[in-house]
Amino acid sequence: MNHRAGLFITLEGGEGAGKSTAAARLAEVLRAEGLTVLATREPGGTKGAEAMRALLLSTTITLDPMAQTMLHFAARADLVETVIRPALARGEVVICDRFYDSTMAYQAYGLNVDVSAVASLTRLINLHPDVTFILEVSESTANERRKVRNGATDRYEEMGADFMARVAHGFRAIAAAEPRRCALIDAEQPVEAVVAAMRRVIRERTRR
Amino acid sequence: MNHRAGLFITLEGGEGAGKSTAAARLAEVLRAEGLTVLATREPGGTKGAEAMRALLLSTTITLDPMAQTMLHFAARADLVETVIRPALARGEVVICDRFYDSTMAYQAYGLNVDVSAVASLTRLINLHPDVTFILEVSESTANERRKVRNGATDRYEEMGADFMARVAHGFRAIAAAEPRRCALIDAEQPVEAVVAAMRRVIRERTRR
Repeated sequence: MNHRAGLFITLEGGEGAGKSTAAARLAEVLRAEGLTVLATREPGGTKGAEAMRALLLSTTITLDPMAQTMLHFAARADLVETVIRPALARGEVVICDRFYDSTMAYQAYGLNVDVSAVASLTRLINLHPDVTFILEVSESTANERRKVRNGATDRYEEMGADFMARVAHGFRAIAAAEPRRCALIDAEQPVEAVVAAMRRVIRERTRR
Repeated sequence: MNHRAGLFITLEGGEGAGKSTAAARLAEVLRAEGLTVLATREPGGTKGAEAMRALLLSTTITLDPMAQTMLHFAARADLVETVIRPALARGEVVICDRFYDSTMAYQAYGLNVDVSAVASLTRLINLHPDVTFILEVSESTANERRKVRNGATDRYEEMGADFMARVAHGFRAIAAAEPRRCALIDAEQPVEAVVAAMRRVIRERTRR
């Protein structure tokens, strides 16, 4: 754990891994235990970052991969400085749906931006999760879950299977490189089992 | 000069220094000499970067200073990769109204973002102007020129005199640190004299 009062938990994974549902359910479980939980998402979570999210997910405006990378980090900086750090300082649990590992997986592994560029930007943010859950599902499950959403597709959902395979490989590489921070979660399971697995890992690693 | 075919010229300075007018006039002068000139501005110059500009200059959305810094660099990355580098590769003269020195002056000197953070982001962009003109005017001239514009003020124009003094100090520090790239231009002169001074410096430094 980092030296601060709160607890910072992030959820990561490809499209259709079930992150948002699992994040919302985990927040409920922790609140039921009496913890104060701030649940947020990336990119987004502030007025400025939500405006950046619209641009990042737009399918009508093309953006150079390095520009995408920096724009994700700009949104992150706004969320970290104005929302996450203050909540952690108040001793709250912060659950964030995506964080810097997504930029490493999507832009570096997926779009060939230099890994060292993403690492440099990560150092500028200088806030690390206490626990990062990387939710893994098979390609077929991910496809099924994406279909159920039924809405308009965004920039990343339009990227195709090869891109998604590189992103999945990226997440596994991150988990392997940082086993103390990251935990791989089998997200083929029903959401209650996924949340129970996350709750166990939080207890084991942070004693909370 | 960097090792490439074109010539990359940037204009810098505080609000009301006359950069935009001088940049447009310099482009005309060089075109009249038969050069192919691409004139652009920052933040902006691409569809994505213009959307970021709207957010950067907004007076209704607050943005953390590090988020502003990264957002300026995201807009820059998009412009550099999709517009400036291709034009330089074609051998053109690119004139850009503001570039990375503005982020150093406004966000680092003006808003206390770490100088080393801006330097790190500058390394990620990895494109340096052949000549940077830093246009200097007195505070009273800057105020008069800003009044003439008569439009709505933007984020930076609302920052006040102390901020503008820190920005001006920042530009002078940059010029002092990089005398081979930067040239200070007395912008109290009429625009034709400013442009003639810039034309002389370009000839002396680049033999073009």
